[in-house]
Amino acid sequence: MELKQVGEFGLIHLLKDNTIFDSSSVVIGIGDDTAVTLPTPRQLQLLTTDMLVEHVHFDLKTTTPWQLGYKAVAVNLSDIAAMGGIPKHAVISIAIPQQLDLEFIVGLYDGMKEICREFGVNIIGGDTVSSPHGLVINVTVVGEVEPTNLVRRSSAKVGDVIVITGTLGNSAAGLDLLTKGDWENYDFAWPLVTAHLTPRPQIKVGRAVAELGATSMNDISDGLASELNEIASASGVGMVIHEANIPLLSETIEAAGIFGKKAVDYALYGGEDFQLLFTIEPDKYKLLANLDLGIKVTAIGEVVEKDIGVLLIDSTGSQKHLEPRGYNHFRQEDLYVHI
Amino acid sequence: MELKQVGEFGLIHLLKDNTIFDSSSVVIGIGDDTAVTLPTPRQLQLLTTDMLVEHVHFDLKTTTPWQLGYKAVAVNLSDIAAMGGIPKHAVISIAIPQQLDLEFIVGLYDGMKEICREFGVNIIGGDTVSSPHGLVINVTVVGEVEPTNLVRRSSAKVGDVIVITGTLGNSAAGLDLLTKGDWENYDFAWPLVTAHLTPRPQIKVGRAVAELGATSMNDISDGLASELNEIASASGVGMVIHEANIPLLSETIEAAGIFGKKAVDYALYGGEDFQLLFTIEPDKYKLLANLDLGIKVTAIGEVVEKDIGVLLIDSTGSQKHLEPRGYNHFRQEDLYVHI
Repeated sequence: MELKQVGEFGLIHLLKDNTIFDSSSVVIGIGDDTAVTLPTPRQLQLLTTDMLVEHVHFDLKTTTPWQLGYKAVAVNLSDIAAMGGIPKHAVISIAIPQQLDLEFIVGLYDGMKEICREFGVNIIGGDTVSSPHGLVINVTVVGEVEPTNLVRRSSAKVGDVIVITGTLGNSAAGLDLLTKGDWENYDFAWPLVTAHLTPRPQIKVGRAVAELGATSMNDISDGLASELNEIASASGVGMVIHEANIPLLSETIEAAGIFGKKAVDYALYGGEDFQLLFTIEPDKYKLLANLDLGIKVTAIGEVVEKDIGVLLIDSTGSQKHLEPRGYNHFRQEDLYVHI
Repeated sequence: MELKQVGEFGLIHLLKDNTIFDSSSVVIGIGDDTAVTLPTPRQLQLLTTDMLVEHVHFDLKTTTPWQLGYKAVAVNLSDIAAMGGIPKHAVISIAIPQQLDLEFIVGLYDGMKEICREFGVNIIGGDTVSSPHGLVINVTVVGEVEPTNLVRRSSAKVGDVIVITGTLGNSAAGLDLLTKGDWENYDFAWPLVTAHLTPRPQIKVGRAVAELGATSMNDISDGLASELNEIASASGVGMVIHEANIPLLSETIEAAGIFGKKAVDYALYGGEDFQLLFTIEPDKYKLLANLDLGIKVTAIGEVVEKDIGVLLIDSTGSQKHLEPRGYNHFRQEDLYVHI
């Protein structure tokens, strides 16, 4: 069915069902000039926005509408996780090209609603417009955090342990497989492709390490090298990490073999893993083992004096400076900036 | 200068100056995973988002980048005004096509910063990405309102006076002139073109009538007919308005003559005026005359029983039902939905 057949009110009606998952904080959802919410007293408000553009951030040949909707919200929740926060509400704008049918839009929203249901996030408004060219999705998420749990990227201290959640490089390896096209033929492809198409925001572990006293945190959207440099620069410190400590899936190593790449480069420069990178005092790092985080955490290095810079030490003991280049930062060919 | 010559950090550096106009409520602005704000205690939070797409919502041949930036923020502030609220913070996503140069982007942000400065709104984050086709701008604004001042669109009561601010139809007449192309030749064109390109959100009058006890309010983004129907439908009432009472600029009447249109149709179906439409008890309406609103307000009709519907009475006394069609609701050719 085409969109114009259902018209404005038909589309709103289809989309607005199952959008409120925590009604206690919603005064008005979809259907007035603005959404109206009740903030939790004595909490800070978090606000983040991400725009996904067809042919830049995604390709409709390699993602289902459901996966795309899930990811469009996930990348924002990941930013909330990196502050130690709890996501609360989302507003969603989409510019829809004429060739997309109603089924596509419903699938897209179903993916958004699924991740919102999972994390208790309310969809409380948006804007739906036509696009003369590709699909554009913009999601804005509001979150909350207790002032004592807010984790900035600017407070890493010399002597802190550098820690990451999960494994890195999966998403970039998955993207290589999706771009190649016959990934179904490889036994090892599934976790990589899944990591790329439907990344999971690390809300739970973000909360836990914030409560424990992480000194800085970023979500890994642009590759480990880029994120390390961001924290180092914002905190006025240096960073030394050990290549052998970066956790990689065996599947990522297999994929790297196919493409003649180094698996660790997927982790360092690949991006879109949406794991968390954080720094924490060594004593507190030891306490992480006692917590139910739901995901593995790995110490990969230590925070050092600023003049040392951001260094990678490889298995032979030789060291190199890690440049802050990431997956999407094709500065000469493209522009992709998160401000 | 081209964007790729300044790179990521150069662009952020250029854009992040002069973005905080009320620092008391900003904990972290541009430069971390999310913005962090301090909400005012005991206030409700308002959230609204609008996406503007090149060739759908604007044409770079008829707007300067400064005007476009101003308007992209203005349309969101207008939604905050319609709730009786105060705008506080904005996050801005833009997808930039390669052919736009740095000067364009700086001009666009200068227009955004000007309206933000004017209304004390902080720009606290965003996302800047590349676009393979046209320019896309998405602005999300957070506002606040005291629970007692919140004005919904669903609480109009039979017997209320229907009131609008300013004059209507200016923007649509201005768009006709801009589309025609030689508007500089017409003495009367300037206020109309200005109304279309740089609409002013009616924050001050929105606050004043909310405090006085307006029973319902909408901003007039889709034409008076559409907004009357929205309030009538949400409130379960009917509306009767008098054509002779709709305030029109003489310039709008002149423009209508050129295009062989009825001036009042610009007001009813034109849209993008961003004036306020509200309902209020007759006794309270009289008190408006004592207030310094900074803009004329005009009673155009009264709220009636639901089964009467939404009626327009013309100067001969004959009446017709007002259909909820507005400027952007080309349901058969296009899709433009605000949810």
